[in-house]
Amino acid sequence: MTFHSMWAELLPIGRSSASGGYRRFAWTGADADCRAWFKAQAESRGLTYELDRNGNQWAWLGDPTAGDAVVTGSHLDSVPDGGAFDGPLGVVSSFAALDELRARQVTLAKPLALVNFGDEEGARFGLACVGSRLAAGQLTVEQAHRLTDADGVTLPQAMERAGYDAGTIGPDPERLARIGAFVELHVEQGRALDLSGDRIGIASAIWPHGRWRFDFRGEANHAGTTRLADRRDPMLSYAETVLAARREARLAGAVATFGKIAVEPNGVNAIPSLVRGWLDSRAADQRTLDTVVTGVEKAAREYADAHGIELDVVRESFTPVVEFDHALRDELARILGRDTGTGAGTGADLKVPVLGTGAGHDAGILSGTIPTAMLFVRNPTGVSHSPAEYAAEDDCVAGVTALADVLEGLARR
Amino acid sequence: MTFHSMWAELLPIGRSSASGGYRRFAWTGADADCRAWFKAQAESRGLTYELDRNGNQWAWLGDPTAGDAVVTGSHLDSVPDGGAFDGPLGVVSSFAALDELRARQVTLAKPLALVNFGDEEGARFGLACVGSRLAAGQLTVEQAHRLTDADGVTLPQAMERAGYDAGTIGPDPERLARIGAFVELHVEQGRALDLSGDRIGIASAIWPHGRWRFDFRGEANHAGTTRLADRRDPMLSYAETVLAARREARLAGAVATFGKIAVEPNGVNAIPSLVRGWLDSRAADQRTLDTVVTGVEKAAREYADAHGIELDVVRESFTPVVEFDHALRDELARILGRDTGTGAGTGADLKVPVLGTGAGHDAGILSGTIPTAMLFVRNPTGVSHSPAEYAAEDDCVAGVTALADVLEGLARR
Repeated sequence: MTFHSMWAELLPIGRSSASGGYRRFAWTGADADCRAWFKAQAESRGLTYELDRNGNQWAWLGDPTAGDAVVTGSHLDSVPDGGAFDGPLGVVSSFAALDELRARQVTLAKPLALVNFGDEEGARFGLACVGSRLAAGQLTVEQAHRLTDADGVTLPQAMERAGYDAGTIGPDPERLARIGAFVELHVEQGRALDLSGDRIGIASAIWPHGRWRFDFRGEANHAGTTRLADRRDPMLSYAETVLAARREARLAGAVATFGKIAVEPNGVNAIPSLVRGWLDSRAADQRTLDTVVTGVEKAAREYADAHGIELDVVRESFTPVVEFDHALRDELARILGRDTGTGAGTGADLKVPVLGTGAGHDAGILSGTIPTAMLFVRNPTGVSHSPAEYAAEDDCVAGVTALADVLEGLARR
Repeated sequence: MTFHSMWAELLPIGRSSASGGYRRFAWTGADADCRAWFKAQAESRGLTYELDRNGNQWAWLGDPTAGDAVVTGSHLDSVPDGGAFDGPLGVVSSFAALDELRARQVTLAKPLALVNFGDEEGARFGLACVGSRLAAGQLTVEQAHRLTDADGVTLPQAMERAGYDAGTIGPDPERLARIGAFVELHVEQGRALDLSGDRIGIASAIWPHGRWRFDFRGEANHAGTTRLADRRDPMLSYAETVLAARREARLAGAVATFGKIAVEPNGVNAIPSLVRGWLDSRAADQRTLDTVVTGVEKAAREYADAHGIELDVVRESFTPVVEFDHALRDELARILGRDTGTGAGTGADLKVPVLGTGAGHDAGILSGTIPTAMLFVRNPTGVSHSPAEYAAEDDCVAGVTALADVLEGLARR
C-alpha cells in the first residue's frame, strides 16, 4: 500500500464536515477507527501487533524482546478541529518507510517497531501525551484516574467504554527497556524549513515553555451609569497586558500568546469584576523565557496599579527545555547529510538543518528514559492545529525516504 | 412599619452568602418571596391589591378605575449578584411615602397606586423591563413566548411553574389609561449627586444607548510553534479596540465598555480563530454616541487591517434617547425646589439638580404612553449592579420625604 493510498484511507476518519477539521479525541469512535486502521496495516504486513497496558499500539518486525530495538511512530489523535498531518504523518510515514526498507531488501540487525501513542494531544482530558507519560512513569495511576473530560467521564471510564481494560494502566519500564532509539517524524509546526528552503529538518530541543494565569480583579459596576473616572475596569489592564506580551516576545525573539480568557460576570452592560487571562510563552532557552515572562508581568502590574486593579499571577505549568540525545541527533545528521536522494541536499557536504521547536511531543516525554530524536517535514505556511495545516506530497515522500534512511542506518549495524 | 423595618425584612431575600449579592430573578423562589412581601405590605395598609395580566403587582388607595391616578413604584428583582437598592429602594420608599402622607393627614383628590413591575432587570430571559414592555405593547405576546432562560425554560413556562396564568399576558391599555402620572424613585447609578453635594435629583432623560458586537476573525494556530510574523491573532486587534473605546469615550464625555467576550477555540495553547467582543456605549445625545461608536469602529478596522484580521461589526440593539415628560419634570422641580425639609435645599430658592442617566428603567418604557418622571437618591460611590451598591439611610429618608411631597403635590389637586 503506497503512502498516498494509506493517507487517503485515513483522511475521512473523524473529519468534521462543518469545520473541515479533525475531531479524533482519545477513546471516541473516531479514535477507534484510527486504531483499527493501525492494526489492519500492521497485520497486512505480517508484523506482530501488540496493545500495551496504556493503550498504545505497537507493530513489530523481528523479536520484540530481543532488545536495542529501533522504534518510529507518532500519534493519530487530534486537537479540536485540527489538521490532517499533526500525528498521522508520522504514523503513515513509518509504515511507508518500512515498505521502502523491504523494497531495498535491507537486512536489519535489530528489531524494528512502529508505534501509535494514545491521547497525545490531550484534547479530551486536558493533559497532553497521556500514553507516553503513563509508560514513562511521568503520570501516576492516581493522577490518571483523576482526569475527566468535559462531560465528567474519567479516563478509566472512557477506556472501559471503548472496550479496553483500564485496570492495567501504569509505568511500563520493561517495554521501554527494549528500545535502543526512538525517532518521531512530524510535520513542522512553524516555517523554519520553508524559510531555509529545506524539505527535512532534525530537532535539537523542545523549547522550555509554561502557562501563567493572570487574574485582574476590579469592581463590577453598571456599564451605562458609572463615570469613566470612577471605574476599576480590569478589561483595560488585560488589554494592555495582551499588547505587552506581544511586544516582549518580539523583542526577545520568543513567542507569547493570550488565547484563553474567562470574564465575570461577562455581561454586555456590566463592567467586569474579574478578567482571567492565560499566557502561554516559550523561548529557545530558559533565560529568554524568563525575560519575556518577567517583562509581561511587570507591565501588567504597572497597568493594574495605575487603574486600581488587583493582579495575581500564578504559574500553572512549566516544562524545562528538553534536549534530544546528542549522539542520536548527530547520527541522524550524519546519515541524512550524505546525498541520500531525500531532497535534503544534492551534494555530499550538504547539511540538514537542526531546529528547536516550541511544541511538546511523545518524543520529548520519552527523551528522559530512552534516546530519542525527531525529524520534521516542511510546512509551507507553518499553520498547525488548524484545518489549514499542510505539507506538500513530494515533501512527505522525501520524509518517508529520510525516515527509511535513518531506520536503515540505525538498525542495520 | 417604618422604612427601616421594611428594609430589614427584604434584606435577606435572595441574598447569596457566597457573593453577598442578590439573585432575585423573575419567577424564581426569591422573586416569589419578594412578591409575597409586597402583597403583605399592601394588605396590612388596607390597600386594594391587584395582580395584572403581566404579573405586575399593584396596591391602590382610592378607586382604581377613577382615572388620573398618581402612581409610584419600581421593581424588586435584581441582576446577578446585584445590590440591595436598585429597585427595592423605590418600592420600599413608595410604602414609606404613603405612610408619610397618612401621617400628614392629607386629603387626596386622586387615586394613588404603588407598583412592583416584574422582571425589570432581564437577568433570566435576557430582555429588560418585560413587565412594563408587555403592558405598554412594546413587547408582543409572540416575542415574549420566544424568551428562554439558560436552562431552556420559556417565559410562559416559568410563569406557570410559579403559579401564574401565562395565558393572559399582553398589552394592557385600559390599566395604563387609568394613570395620570408615574413617578419612579431609584438609587442613582453614578456619582453626579455625590459630586454636586445633593441628596435628591430629578431625571431629565435616559441617554441613547446601544450594543454592538465586534467579531474579529483571524487564523487558529499553535501558540508554541507559530512565528509572531506568521500569526493572524485576533486577540491583539481586540485588545487595541478595548483601549480605543476607552479613549473615544473619554474624549467625547460618554461611556463605552467591553464587558463580554467569547473566544474560539479559547485554548491556552491556541492562537484564537475568533474573538467576539460586545461594546456597550451610551452618551447624553445621539450625535455624541455616533461619534464614539464611529471612532471605535474606525480604530478597530485600522488595527484589523494591519494584522490581517477580518472584522464584522453588528449593532445588536439600540434605544434612542428617552426624554421624560417636561411638564411633569418641571412640576417635580417646583414641588421640591421649595424648602420641603427633604434636605434637597435649605432655602426657598434652592434647586434640585436635573440629571441624565445611562440606565434603562420601567419609567423609560412607560414614558412613551403616560407622563413619567424619576427621582434619584444619592449614591456615595456610584457603584451599582454590585453588592457594594449603597445609599446612606438619611439620604433614603430624604428620598421618602421628597417622594411624599411629590405625591401630595400631584394628587391633592
